[in-house]
Amino acid sequence: MALYVQKFGGTSVGSVERIKAVAEKVKGFRDQGHQIVVVVSAMSGETNRLIEMASQINEEPTPREMDMLVSTGEQVTISLLAMALHQLGVKATSYTGAQIGIRTDSAHTRARIQRIETDELRDDLEEGQVVVVAGFQGVDSEGNITTLGRGGSDTTGVALAAALKADECQIYTDVDGVYTTDPRVCAKARRLESITVEEMLEMASLGSKVLQIRAVEFAGKYNVPLRVLSSFEDGPGTLITADEEISNMEEPLISGIAFNNNEAKLTVLNTPDVPGVASRILGPISDANIEVDMIVQNVAPSGGYTDFTFTVAKNDFRQTQRILQEQVIPSLGGGEVRGDDKIAKVSLVGVGMRSHAGVASRMFRVLADEGINIRMVSTSEIKISVVIDEKFLELAVRSLHTAFGLDKADVSEEDEKTR
Amino acid sequence: MALYVQKFGGTSVGSVERIKAVAEKVKGFRDQGHQIVVVVSAMSGETNRLIEMASQINEEPTPREMDMLVSTGEQVTISLLAMALHQLGVKATSYTGAQIGIRTDSAHTRARIQRIETDELRDDLEEGQVVVVAGFQGVDSEGNITTLGRGGSDTTGVALAAALKADECQIYTDVDGVYTTDPRVCAKARRLESITVEEMLEMASLGSKVLQIRAVEFAGKYNVPLRVLSSFEDGPGTLITADEEISNMEEPLISGIAFNNNEAKLTVLNTPDVPGVASRILGPISDANIEVDMIVQNVAPSGGYTDFTFTVAKNDFRQTQRILQEQVIPSLGGGEVRGDDKIAKVSLVGVGMRSHAGVASRMFRVLADEGINIRMVSTSEIKISVVIDEKFLELAVRSLHTAFGLDKADVSEEDEKTR
Repeated sequence: MALYVQKFGGTSVGSVERIKAVAEKVKGFRDQGHQIVVVVSAMSGETNRLIEMASQINEEPTPREMDMLVSTGEQVTISLLAMALHQLGVKATSYTGAQIGIRTDSAHTRARIQRIETDELRDDLEEGQVVVVAGFQGVDSEGNITTLGRGGSDTTGVALAAALKADECQIYTDVDGVYTTDPRVCAKARRLESITVEEMLEMASLGSKVLQIRAVEFAGKYNVPLRVLSSFEDGPGTLITADEEISNMEEPLISGIAFNNNEAKLTVLNTPDVPGVASRILGPISDANIEVDMIVQNVAPSGGYTDFTFTVAKNDFRQTQRILQEQVIPSLGGGEVRGDDKIAKVSLVGVGMRSHAGVASRMFRVLADEGINIRMVSTSEIKISVVIDEKFLELAVRSLHTAFGLDKADVSEEDEKTR
Repeated sequence: MALYVQKFGGTSVGSVERIKAVAEKVKGFRDQGHQIVVVVSAMSGETNRLIEMASQINEEPTPREMDMLVSTGEQVTISLLAMALHQLGVKATSYTGAQIGIRTDSAHTRARIQRIETDELRDDLEEGQVVVVAGFQGVDSEGNITTLGRGGSDTTGVALAAALKADECQIYTDVDGVYTTDPRVCAKARRLESITVEEMLEMASLGSKVLQIRAVEFAGKYNVPLRVLSSFEDGPGTLITADEEISNMEEPLISGIAFNNNEAKLTVLNTPDVPGVASRILGPISDANIEVDMIVQNVAPSGGYTDFTFTVAKNDFRQTQRILQEQVIPSLGGGEVRGDDKIAKVSLVGVGMRSHAGVASRMFRVLADEGINIRMVSTSEIKISVVIDEKFLELAVRSLHTAFGLDKADVSEEDEKTR
């Protein structure tokens, strides 16, 4: 008998029929004797419906009232799911975040969980109840309803699993696991049996939107085994674990390839190489609340001049260019601004990289063989990212996927045809 | 400066535009320096939408989960109204029933208020906040969300007014007050300036659906001045007061005429007049959860036989007839069942009746002059009800309205034409 926390997102509970299907799935686990806590989001579309009404009334509603409003979305789902479980003869009780004792700070619309009271929850589980909890919400010390921000239901699930020392936190979603790369770009992409928390964080922050980063961090911090599964088909999904031994059974050099073509590159050329040049370039960008991702600085061999390159989100491109031209260049006393928004970032991610030299040089060789120029490089302990021309994105991902042995086995390719 | 509790029903907050209009109205009172507590219902249609989803999932949802579900309706309204008040520059805070401390018993879907904690509420009012409270809901001693049953928002308003010793509880609705009778039946019907609680209870239970009976009882018990007003147009509305002196300034014999054509009449004729005959007739009816309204029993002058007549709701007519035929007549050892579902009940209501003899005889004479036969009579201290043929309903109401001096003055009739 195990204790599972199971989280179902908005799409998984998006209609009366889907709520019934979730109840069937939960009943299956109960029938095997497991203890189950279910965390649910608002039915898909509901949160947007509420926000739309608010926007018609007040362009800048206070965060407290927004939380009061949108928290009703999950409350509807928990009661409907409890009813669906009752209909199947499964004992179940629903709780709002406030009722179950998910205590947060008072940062409305982006609150952080401080502690969770588990006594009542444990009593219910001992009685054989399925406990249905509203995700995404909590209560502050004053009794105000708070929300954890969009996608925060994953965090609720992981936090409950940590507090209850659950055997696994299962995140049900519309994909059947974490893939080596996006199957829409590379047909040979393979579902991973497991991946480490660190790798998942790199994959997530680079654009794989399976899980909320915050929930993965939380799972790593509290050592909660996290599993991503499909709500709609059976299968083992992908286990996200802090334990590298479990994750590395397959022993690949790299676990996956993340990519992102939502960034733009900006370069300040031939600017005087004086102390503090980096902060004089990035200061005004940061003041405008623009986030910078990759940063590379080269000093010209002739000395005295430096080139400074960085990337920002594509929709910050024009504004960043303007700030550089109008504020930075005058303040530096010289230099030239170049920009390119037709770029893509491709990253290899894997804890295996730590102990194996040569991943970078192999990556560069594969890209060179395909005639792909590398515009920027940035590395971390378990990741190498390169910026290339956007038009080479698919080619780069597919070549690297094959070269680093991530492709499905032949048998799996047969499967693919019948999918 | 006064303290008002203002309750707005589902129609009054039925759209974003109407919520904005309510905010404007509340702002008007705040600008005059009054302290305001606003109680709101769910937006019209919302509760039915939620119940419909529930019914697709479970034919008999548990009352606890129903309360969890439908209580979201008011929670949406309070947050939207607070946002609308903020937009107008009015300080406001919303509270669910649980947050404001409306403690109830655990009778889900029909809970009764036990006490209300007012400390926080008073603090907010002192700070100049408009306090926006979700009607219809509370919390039991275990922290479960409860609801007071449909229409319970009126009760929330009156209970808050009682707890805060408010100067007035104002119920905003889609009519502009309590009328002498239904204006759709009698064009000369006149809005009452005031009416006593007792009279209002008789009017309400006889079919005037302006206010929930329970809220009126509550107002009487705790001596809360209650005022019914229109959400959509300005005007003084009707004051419902326990104080007969205030109410009787106009000194009419009767205050209003209530009527109802939703009942059916059943008679058991020529049944042996033995002790306990009434309970032997009504016992099986009551066992079937059928409510009986008027009851008349006549003993035949020849002795030994009795006629027993009573009324039930029209949609219980067939079942009641069957019970009488199949169970009661055999058990009585004789008798004959007659039924009539083409009847109407017309009632004169007024505390003035207490001190004036002759209201009944005058009523009977007016009806006789119009050729209307009276089928049944029943009286209480402040009410006389007669049952007549349904087809005479409008004629009876209009004749009595004129005969008892309830018609509008001529000036008002002019008003009527321009309305």
